[in-house]
Amino acid sequence: MVAPSSQPSTALLTDRYELTMLEGALRDGTAARRCVFELFARRLAGGRRFGVVAGTGRLLEALRSFRFGDDELRFLRDDRVVDDTTLAYLADYRFRGSLTGYREGELYFPGSPVLTVEGTFADAVVLETIALSILNHDSAVATAAARMSIAAGDRPLAEMGSRRASERGAVAAARAAYIAGFGATSNLEAGRAWGIPTMGTAAHAWTLLHDREEDAFRAQIEALGADTTLLVDTYDIRTGVATAIRVAGTGLGGVRIDSGDLPIVAAEVRAQLDALGATGTRITVTSDLDEYAIAALAASPVDAYGVGTSVVTGSGTPTAGMVFKLVARQDAAGGWTPVAKLSADKASLGGRKTAFRRLEGGTATAEVVEVASGFDLPDAPAQHPDARPLQVPLVVAGDIDATAEGPEGVRRARAHHLRVREELPVQALALSRADPGIPTVHTSAD
Amino acid sequence: MVAPSSQPSTALLTDRYELTMLEGALRDGTAARRCVFELFARRLAGGRRFGVVAGTGRLLEALRSFRFGDDELRFLRDDRVVDDTTLAYLADYRFRGSLTGYREGELYFPGSPVLTVEGTFADAVVLETIALSILNHDSAVATAAARMSIAAGDRPLAEMGSRRASERGAVAAARAAYIAGFGATSNLEAGRAWGIPTMGTAAHAWTLLHDREEDAFRAQIEALGADTTLLVDTYDIRTGVATAIRVAGTGLGGVRIDSGDLPIVAAEVRAQLDALGATGTRITVTSDLDEYAIAALAASPVDAYGVGTSVVTGSGTPTAGMVFKLVARQDAAGGWTPVAKLSADKASLGGRKTAFRRLEGGTATAEVVEVASGFDLPDAPAQHPDARPLQVPLVVAGDIDATAEGPEGVRRARAHHLRVREELPVQALALSRADPGIPTVHTSAD
Repeated sequence: MVAPSSQPSTALLTDRYELTMLEGALRDGTAARRCVFELFARRLAGGRRFGVVAGTGRLLEALRSFRFGDDELRFLRDDRVVDDTTLAYLADYRFRGSLTGYREGELYFPGSPVLTVEGTFADAVVLETIALSILNHDSAVATAAARMSIAAGDRPLAEMGSRRASERGAVAAARAAYIAGFGATSNLEAGRAWGIPTMGTAAHAWTLLHDREEDAFRAQIEALGADTTLLVDTYDIRTGVATAIRVAGTGLGGVRIDSGDLPIVAAEVRAQLDALGATGTRITVTSDLDEYAIAALAASPVDAYGVGTSVVTGSGTPTAGMVFKLVARQDAAGGWTPVAKLSADKASLGGRKTAFRRLEGGTATAEVVEVASGFDLPDAPAQHPDARPLQVPLVVAGDIDATAEGPEGVRRARAHHLRVREELPVQALALSRADPGIPTVHTSAD
Repeated sequence: MVAPSSQPSTALLTDRYELTMLEGALRDGTAARRCVFELFARRLAGGRRFGVVAGTGRLLEALRSFRFGDDELRFLRDDRVVDDTTLAYLADYRFRGSLTGYREGELYFPGSPVLTVEGTFADAVVLETIALSILNHDSAVATAAARMSIAAGDRPLAEMGSRRASERGAVAAARAAYIAGFGATSNLEAGRAWGIPTMGTAAHAWTLLHDREEDAFRAQIEALGADTTLLVDTYDIRTGVATAIRVAGTGLGGVRIDSGDLPIVAAEVRAQLDALGATGTRITVTSDLDEYAIAALAASPVDAYGVGTSVVTGSGTPTAGMVFKLVARQDAAGGWTPVAKLSADKASLGGRKTAFRRLEGGTATAEVVEVASGFDLPDAPAQHPDARPLQVPLVVAGDIDATAEGPEGVRRARAHHLRVREELPVQALALSRADPGIPTVHTSAD
């Protein structure tokens, strides 16, 4: 999809200790030990009832550009980050292991093996930061976006929070929100790079630029047609609405309200529009919305929502809190050992995991996580009637699944998300903080 | 500093409505009206007592790459975002106006004119999203980082939150944290791009990779020397510390603790190290720290802090909430008009602002914001004895101040921040939510 050379290198989007460990491992021979790392969330941050996996397609593209070129190697040498042996290893590095993971758009729960990285220690250890950065950020946004999308029901939602996120993170956030049910974004780069529909007409500056509000409305209609959306709250909303219909006629596409007490204002504007005969003119609201405000507007005459800050910042939970842990490795004798740390409050569970979602009548009832004692998957994985396997191959011996990348990957992820979201039990759809919507059940493959 | 052609274009990191307004303005002639836009915060998000401006140097670099190339124009044409006249305008676009702003690292308060953009409407309007994205994100991180840095006192702080932020946002976050007083980052790209010291030794995976904890410690010391920091909490901390000193000797540089009840564990580890004779071995703690946890550890025998999630996500306030508003423009007759919107809860104050910090005995007592009635600054700005002017030219008629860019810009910003932070009154240094540490006083230049 993307040629490695055309994109900036992603290789230094990495915590220094990964390369320090690599250096130590190249010295003592452990670099060649085969390893299984898993990326998962210990809990659902923010008391969410489900999580949404997002970022997988971006991670695969980042992997293509994860190469240490002259600039990267020069920095590592000049700053004495690693020794010459390690520099030589990195100069030839490309990921030759395998990635298995949840489909992008899939739901996850505590302990879900969202991503499994297999390879030598040297192959796998350097991917920790880039994998976590992308999946933690994108999944946090997608999870918040899904809650908003559920709260909005059939009303369209647009993401317009770029100004409240780092400039490249904003593009990723637009992508994650779209996967989780938003219909459009204000961010043009998200349109170009990922094929997401873009939207937007005018800011308050447009009205202020003109000597009269009427001049601004007239100029906008001349440029964009009467089906456009006029922003009516720069001065007095009632006057703004009256001017909008006088200028555009009753065929005006829509009005946007960006301030005030929205349930009250929306009802007043609807009544005014109807009284003027503009019964088909839509009302879009865009002021500091989050999933709770959207839910509170369910009975108001609102036709569409624009959401900014809250969706791009994960609505109070800006990171999904996923971790990347070594769970199995070769030992000195060449055998396989499940490994786990025992740190207080941060213990991990050793062994490679296989995951299924148990369903009853199409509704999810449990996340089944099967723990293998060895490294390899059983030839015939345990059968789980009425359970859906959750993991798919993403990279096989260094070969990346291109169908998960680019605009096509985004379309597939969105479709998958909207499909599997239908499996959520009703208690998982409420917005309040609670336990996960379904329990995670650990089983043993032995 | 950075040649435009060597960096990816930043031109589509833009909300669609900016280009839609540009199209309308090119049609009705208002595109050529000279305008003043201001970027400011209405309030300090999160009940902060001060804000820290960060991102200015990054914005100037982004401005160099804010060009519409073939890829960008093709997308805008194919997606019918704007008409051919607008495409032709964009093909030639480079910012020819001026930027004036607070120095990077400067403190700000409600209403501080952090950035002023002057130019034609067409020149200036398209910078809204990129300017807000960068300054909102970086300033939120820098503000949180400054609070942590104040809480840490003389103990060194390292930023290690890349895994909890979008992959490019993480680099910006490392930069902002360094400007606001952190001493190092785990992020290698932040080291390469911005000259920030990088740090890090080993993760739990390093211990788990080896058959015995002792083997991992021994290999790390062989690679990095006895002055390294060993992570001692993979299994049992007391055993880990004993093994560390047995392997490294009493000259071990440090131990890192990443779990548990830190005040208790730190005291136990210090006592154990001292009893073993390792009185010079430092203790670094890194588990879920924020400014409050750092403050709570002030009396504990901790030598250094590593902070992850909380600093890169702004410690509960991931965006500074700054806005970008048109405050003055030419009218149809060529005269100057201050403009302001009157929207409920979001009213703005028209007129160009000049800002000073009033000082008494070296301590800040007020943010003085002087509102001009016209477009131009007075030839001789009002004198403010015992007040420090806050704005500097950043771009003059399209010419960018290169000293604010790159590693040199970061060094200057950090030095400036650490200097001006000394001016804060004592009530501004407390961590609890409160009003701003000094009041903002609006005055008129007339």
